[in-house]
Amino acid sequence: MLPKGNHAGALALAAKERGIKCFVVMPSNSAQPKIDAVRSYGAEITFCEPNAPARAATLATVQKRTGATFIPPYDAVNTILGQGTALLELLDQTPEPLAAVAAPVGGGGLLAGTALAAEGTGVRVFGAEPSGADDCAQGLREGQRRDTVDANTIADGLRTPVGHINFPIIQDKVEQVIVVSDEEIIRAMRLLWERLKLVVEPSSATAFAAVMSPAFQRLGVKGPVGIIISGGNVDLSQPLPWTLE
Amino acid sequence: MLPKGNHAGALALAAKERGIKCFVVMPSNSAQPKIDAVRSYGAEITFCEPNAPARAATLATVQKRTGATFIPPYDAVNTILGQGTALLELLDQTPEPLAAVAAPVGGGGLLAGTALAAEGTGVRVFGAEPSGADDCAQGLREGQRRDTVDANTIADGLRTPVGHINFPIIQDKVEQVIVVSDEEIIRAMRLLWERLKLVVEPSSATAFAAVMSPAFQRLGVKGPVGIIISGGNVDLSQPLPWTLE
Repeated sequence: MLPKGNHAGALALAAKERGIKCFVVMPSNSAQPKIDAVRSYGAEITFCEPNAPARAATLATVQKRTGATFIPPYDAVNTILGQGTALLELLDQTPEPLAAVAAPVGGGGLLAGTALAAEGTGVRVFGAEPSGADDCAQGLREGQRRDTVDANTIADGLRTPVGHINFPIIQDKVEQVIVVSDEEIIRAMRLLWERLKLVVEPSSATAFAAVMSPAFQRLGVKGPVGIIISGGNVDLSQPLPWTLE
Repeated sequence: MLPKGNHAGALALAAKERGIKCFVVMPSNSAQPKIDAVRSYGAEITFCEPNAPARAATLATVQKRTGATFIPPYDAVNTILGQGTALLELLDQTPEPLAAVAAPVGGGGLLAGTALAAEGTGVRVFGAEPSGADDCAQGLREGQRRDTVDANTIADGLRTPVGHINFPIIQDKVEQVIVVSDEEIIRAMRLLWERLKLVVEPSSATAFAAVMSPAFQRLGVKGPVGIIISGGNVDLSQPLPWTLE
């Protein structure tokens, strides 16, 4: 049972492959393709109002009814370790050793997991955060996790305060969280669509934007840089973001 | 030296990797991302008016000036054999044997190459053609290659009469060319974007549309079906086709 977009799809598919029942709590304003994907993987969806209290209440009701185990989208050790396997796969498939890797940070599951997976490999780990939701970068500067986040960014998957378990791992093991503007995110997203032919969402493009940013380029990293691209939930019935300027 | 979109990009990249100079003749109305891609692979572009006589004349001028060898986009044995390697790669990477494979047909390089690569493997080969440019399917019915083609389809890469070398290979080795409407192509394209997260152009989606069509489904093919997806040249500054209805 789980309450987030890419997480929902991933768990629904994993449950289906193992013959396990999966129950998903989703906000009522979720994009139709996301709903269709989760359903096609055989998960049962319960909709809730799009806010945190409604989500928690609906989650509790569904858990009580089904006896299902709650699998949080980021603030949990196993979720973090699971998300770290993306880097393990990338290292397996890359012929040369990576000099660095970048991952986006919202709740921080992917970034903390990436940092743990990079332990002992010599790969330098960077986070990427939109300037309109940069609670993690601010928390790192202040030496203390922030409880709230602005949600003033196109990168909707990153409008989440970094988790309690995630923050200290990031503090300890991530070299730097690079903050990028929505303009940089949209430019990076378009380049990924045009040249890699990948439908990625703004949250995913954030890591690529960070690697192209002056802040990263100034570091003079030598060698291949890996980028963790995590999702492609884009509402394709709407105009693409770069056509809206 | 070469005059077509995906072909141009592929050859420019192949030439770059081998340290060979590459000259491309392109219509002056080519999409900017296509131009940028070919340039970034180091090829030198000469623009021509967007019609066949202008293209041939410009090609001749460039050849005379540079001494370059002309590499035709489809109507040539080596091009056909090269395009057939897509199926070889697919067979290499597929754990189970394929029951069938579908490829789009415009000039017919990809389809003839696919059919040759499938020889002796037991894989059934199907072509896919838009109803607004179905010269190949018509030619097969009439037992004779057609010299002209309507260009009344969104699948711009397939608005080409099938080549002289390509047609008899297709006649001999392809089980059936399935004709699909633009509506079916757009629906297939959207599904590839939403679920496989791939930016594919209408011409590429044509093969997937054929596999989803009633004509193909009636055949009752048992087992995995391969689809050759060949290009993602989509002008992302324009509205996506399914938003235009």
